[in-house]
Amino acid sequence: MSKTYIFGHKSPDTDSITSSLVMCDLENKLGNADVVSCRLGNLNKETEFVLDYFDIEAPQLIESIEDDAEVILVDHNSPSESVDNIENAKILKLVDHHKIAFETSYPLFIRTEPVGCTETILFKLYKENGLTPDKTIASLMLSAIISDTLLLKSPTTTEDDKQAVKELAEIAQIDYEEYGLEMLKAGTDLSSFSIEEILSLDAKQIDFKDVRSIVNQVNTADIDDVMTMKDDLEAGMNKIIEDENLDLFMLLITDIVNSNSQVIALGKDVCLVEKAYGVKLEDNTVLLEGVVSRKKQVVPIMTENA
Amino acid sequence: MSKTYIFGHKSPDTDSITSSLVMCDLENKLGNADVVSCRLGNLNKETEFVLDYFDIEAPQLIESIEDDAEVILVDHNSPSESVDNIENAKILKLVDHHKIAFETSYPLFIRTEPVGCTETILFKLYKENGLTPDKTIASLMLSAIISDTLLLKSPTTTEDDKQAVKELAEIAQIDYEEYGLEMLKAGTDLSSFSIEEILSLDAKQIDFKDVRSIVNQVNTADIDDVMTMKDDLEAGMNKIIEDENLDLFMLLITDIVNSNSQVIALGKDVCLVEKAYGVKLEDNTVLLEGVVSRKKQVVPIMTENA
Repeated sequence: MSKTYIFGHKSPDTDSITSSLVMCDLENKLGNADVVSCRLGNLNKETEFVLDYFDIEAPQLIESIEDDAEVILVDHNSPSESVDNIENAKILKLVDHHKIAFETSYPLFIRTEPVGCTETILFKLYKENGLTPDKTIASLMLSAIISDTLLLKSPTTTEDDKQAVKELAEIAQIDYEEYGLEMLKAGTDLSSFSIEEILSLDAKQIDFKDVRSIVNQVNTADIDDVMTMKDDLEAGMNKIIEDENLDLFMLLITDIVNSNSQVIALGKDVCLVEKAYGVKLEDNTVLLEGVVSRKKQVVPIMTENA
Repeated sequence: MSKTYIFGHKSPDTDSITSSLVMCDLENKLGNADVVSCRLGNLNKETEFVLDYFDIEAPQLIESIEDDAEVILVDHNSPSESVDNIENAKILKLVDHHKIAFETSYPLFIRTEPVGCTETILFKLYKENGLTPDKTIASLMLSAIISDTLLLKSPTTTEDDKQAVKELAEIAQIDYEEYGLEMLKAGTDLSSFSIEEILSLDAKQIDFKDVRSIVNQVNTADIDDVMTMKDDLEAGMNKIIEDENLDLFMLLITDIVNSNSQVIALGKDVCLVEKAYGVKLEDNTVLLEGVVSRKKQVVPIMTENA
């Protein structure tokens, strides 16, 4: 029997990496031994912190899959965010919390919910199957929910996420607020990254109707600190715009302590940012107060105004 | 608070009608009182039999919905099979067992599984929420699973469907084989239908890649009986092909006792049927032995060969 590959999206974040590991564990417990946890890119600092903290090996790095490979998608569904050659794979299952942009010629198991984190759904699947995640798995799930919801402060946070954090913190025996802040801060350390790396850390290619865009998000505890690199960041963004023929590149520099984002926007359609948020860019940048969620506070409003 | 409309696909079958009623009951039990069960077309004979048998009122007939209406989709997800103006609705949930052709700008609750019937999934949702369907609801669920799986004989049938039938028959206190055969036979009574009605009873618009097609399925206990209408059926099919600018119209006349389908195929791309099944149409028709499932034995093989 051939292996089933389980992976999250490109430019993986803590949810994508841990969901791949956790879904593997769940499949094992449901009797599917031949599954392998994979990732589609390098770990970010936050995820490195999490795997180091709990002494867990990273999923296997893959770039493409062979024709007819069996796969399970977690934390994404759009082919543009998935592995190369996904169009020739057989998708067995999908567990996700994003908008749907997805087509198949066959039915499959799909579980999506409008919650803050894939792990919140995976935790339900454990419970629905009469299972309890062990301490390590619970720690991974907890980390991802804290990451995606910025310690339950992001507007994407739902009651289900809060309940999951409460229950998982008990299983994991972790003070989630203390651990969570330490984890989030670890994720804001950009010191070892080149400009190119910063610009791809959490970059998503999103088309706002006809506007071909990349929206990248960088978390920080100090916006000013990141803005010292503004000239270099803009040069890098302009290069990507040219290379990938983009209409818009939005870089969100998100203050995880005060819950705001400074956006740097470049490309011929920057006026869409001004229209969507009723703001005026000055020197290509503006502070978007209260904006911390790409999914909830960027994608819908940008799509609507495109 | 505005109502949430719950409906299955156009040309509704027993699964679409009962899933709408059952999902309403489930939403009520989960605390959502403001839901209304709807249907997008006339009842077929089989579904009429079911609702008469258990003395249940049919869902409300609707043709389109207003902008921003909140809806729950059951037993379908493709916009082409859904209510008019679905593109301007807010889809809250989707429970289905079909292939996915679906896009949203927001995340939502989706539960799909590759099982024989939507009701098999709904039955799991009851159980996962610690609920048991009452006798009437269980009877409706049982009817739909029998209908979609042709008494558990269709190749779409899974172990989950069999298990659900076993448990639901107990709750409903019904001899499901006896009741099921009576129900399926009631569905084959075409005496009161015009040719136009027969051609729309269970018609699905499906594009096999670029081949714009309709695949209609009519169940019967006697293929010869339906074939006495062949000339009139072909005239009606040709009219629809012309009116709707189709490349292909497949009419499957499915023998529910012996599990075969006689296909009548018309349109400029009939050669696709010959290629897909390795058969030769004679006088526009051929017997497809063992073929009873549009979803499992028509859509994938036709798409692959298109």
